[in-house]
Amino acid sequence: MSRLATTQLTRPEGIIDLSIGQPDASLLPTSIFDANNIDAPSLAYGAPAGDGRFREAMGHWLTEHCGTQVKGEALLITNGSSNAIDMICTRFSRAGDTVLVEEPTYFIALKQFTDHGLNVVPVAMDDNGLEPEALATAIEQYQPAFIYSIPSFHNPTGIDQPLPRRQQLVAIAKQHQCLLVADEVYPLLDYDKEPAAPLASLDADAPVLSIGTFSKILAPGLRLGWLQGSPDLIDQLSSSGLISSGGGLSPVTSALVRPLLINGHLSQHLAQLRHTLKERRDTLVNALHRHCGDRLQFNLPHGGYFLWAHTQADIDTQKLLPKAKAEGVGYLPGAACYTHTNKTNAMRLCFAFYDKEELALAGERLGAILN
Amino acid sequence: MSRLATTQLTRPEGIIDLSIGQPDASLLPTSIFDANNIDAPSLAYGAPAGDGRFREAMGHWLTEHCGTQVKGEALLITNGSSNAIDMICTRFSRAGDTVLVEEPTYFIALKQFTDHGLNVVPVAMDDNGLEPEALATAIEQYQPAFIYSIPSFHNPTGIDQPLPRRQQLVAIAKQHQCLLVADEVYPLLDYDKEPAAPLASLDADAPVLSIGTFSKILAPGLRLGWLQGSPDLIDQLSSSGLISSGGGLSPVTSALVRPLLINGHLSQHLAQLRHTLKERRDTLVNALHRHCGDRLQFNLPHGGYFLWAHTQADIDTQKLLPKAKAEGVGYLPGAACYTHTNKTNAMRLCFAFYDKEELALAGERLGAILN
Repeated sequence: MSRLATTQLTRPEGIIDLSIGQPDASLLPTSIFDANNIDAPSLAYGAPAGDGRFREAMGHWLTEHCGTQVKGEALLITNGSSNAIDMICTRFSRAGDTVLVEEPTYFIALKQFTDHGLNVVPVAMDDNGLEPEALATAIEQYQPAFIYSIPSFHNPTGIDQPLPRRQQLVAIAKQHQCLLVADEVYPLLDYDKEPAAPLASLDADAPVLSIGTFSKILAPGLRLGWLQGSPDLIDQLSSSGLISSGGGLSPVTSALVRPLLINGHLSQHLAQLRHTLKERRDTLVNALHRHCGDRLQFNLPHGGYFLWAHTQADIDTQKLLPKAKAEGVGYLPGAACYTHTNKTNAMRLCFAFYDKEELALAGERLGAILN
Repeated sequence: MSRLATTQLTRPEGIIDLSIGQPDASLLPTSIFDANNIDAPSLAYGAPAGDGRFREAMGHWLTEHCGTQVKGEALLITNGSSNAIDMICTRFSRAGDTVLVEEPTYFIALKQFTDHGLNVVPVAMDDNGLEPEALATAIEQYQPAFIYSIPSFHNPTGIDQPLPRRQQLVAIAKQHQCLLVADEVYPLLDYDKEPAAPLASLDADAPVLSIGTFSKILAPGLRLGWLQGSPDLIDQLSSSGLISSGGGLSPVTSALVRPLLINGHLSQHLAQLRHTLKERRDTLVNALHRHCGDRLQFNLPHGGYFLWAHTQADIDTQKLLPKAKAEGVGYLPGAACYTHTNKTNAMRLCFAFYDKEELALAGERLGAILN
């Protein structure tokens, strides 16, 4: 055993920490990969937008699962969604530029924007996602480098934008010729409905990039994902110095995953994963209803990893956290997902990392501290 | 067969193009990997600086091959050397900053710096590499974000800095507290001498980052490499938003390569690769001597991929290129490796992509056009 850590986190002892936004080890399929698929072309410097064989297989697979046609040439293969955000920042912004984000939003994306010297400006959300009028006003006011939005099973709120709202937002991006970056890492984890079409599929002429990843549907350690967009946007990204120098980003991991797209194993794995995560969501929801009652308000998330809950208005969830941890349960205080507040009565609860027994116990412990 | 490209380039027909700076397919070991090593921890979000098991194995392997101790904790695992340069730009510079480079230098690194909005300022070289006085003067004049240097088997000149010069340059970086980024992707491809110790090993208190990669010693498609530096520099890089969000950069490819570090397969492969590349270098050198005589001047490169040659002073190698291609031979015109010139009598010849017969023929064809 190495003295140095192997994984980003080790399972905490004595606490069920629902702040952890990761799949647990039991969901990771170790015996699904075959190194015989690593052929000579996949060991060479790869085509700039990714191995064409993989892009085509990926296009077919997405077409089958997303309810809309996705062509291989619309895809750029990435080292995962964080790498996609990083490349977008480098290519489409400069330090000092503004990026518009939902509030609340994915808190580590904020750190990526800060690393690139961007000014982060929040835009209001309603129950259907980004508010169109607020977005249009903010675009005019700030002339942002791009908009960053999470349309499906939003992190942290779980909101799934209805199609008319998605169409409105894409139209606004098109009207203002402002790049809309859609972080769509959760739509394939749908528990009660069909997954939505990627935002980049709604209007071929709108400046939209949809970010997808295998981290949530197969394994984060692959560091494998994709960007979907117009030929022009894909070209602008794949002609970067980074890719000109090192070639396409993920030839070998693409070679490991490509057969799974074709032989049905990924689809089978995803069906099982959705079943497991739906059970976990339902277990947490039932436990919260039973033990917390009306002291915890939330909407049912229809997919993704997260449940976004509010305590009574006068409770500061950041201040409550030590008490919760003493009781053996953790959560992400809502303030972490805002740009400028450190006080809110919200909390983000992830139901992907723990099994049903642990989630039921977490709900019981939350009930105890909210009494 | 996909309509979309699989690899960054396809072997050109009817021409032996020595501008290609890649290993050819015959050098890529397709049957060396075993997917059984992809365990659950390697499929999870990885430790920020990389899988500790891999970092330790990598430290032992480098210690064995570089003639100096390299500890696992001094390493950050990357998605390859281009990714390393990209992360360094994001973390240690801002658009408008200056980066000092050798002249000539690796021409695609220049594109990466431009992508980040950096001003590239060239520093003079002599036969031993970067000129220390010129470097010190440029640091004082430009206050650069960092220095970018290729100390071993320099691309394109093939120059291998002697140890005293390396020590001088590291001392200057330390004295001025200016980050020195050493792009060390070739030192393990040594054909006549022992590989040099990484620059980051010369002085633990100097601000130096050494970039290493498996692209040149195993396979580019892995997109796997490392950065070596002080704990402080490694921490600054591994605490980025990119890594906080996506975890360590290459868990699965690390899992594929780790056993090869331990069971001797990588060392065996490297020995064979050095033998093959040395033969190719010698073949090209002999062919150039025989067919070009004193119309082509060059120093013997003791390692790496490249031979840097000069024609007679009044020949512009950029203008000569169409004639060469008509004769069935290509090269990289030297001007591509300079920041501000488009006229030089230099050419970069790569001996890694073609076999001995082709290299001998290339030398013959070069001789024909230089007559």
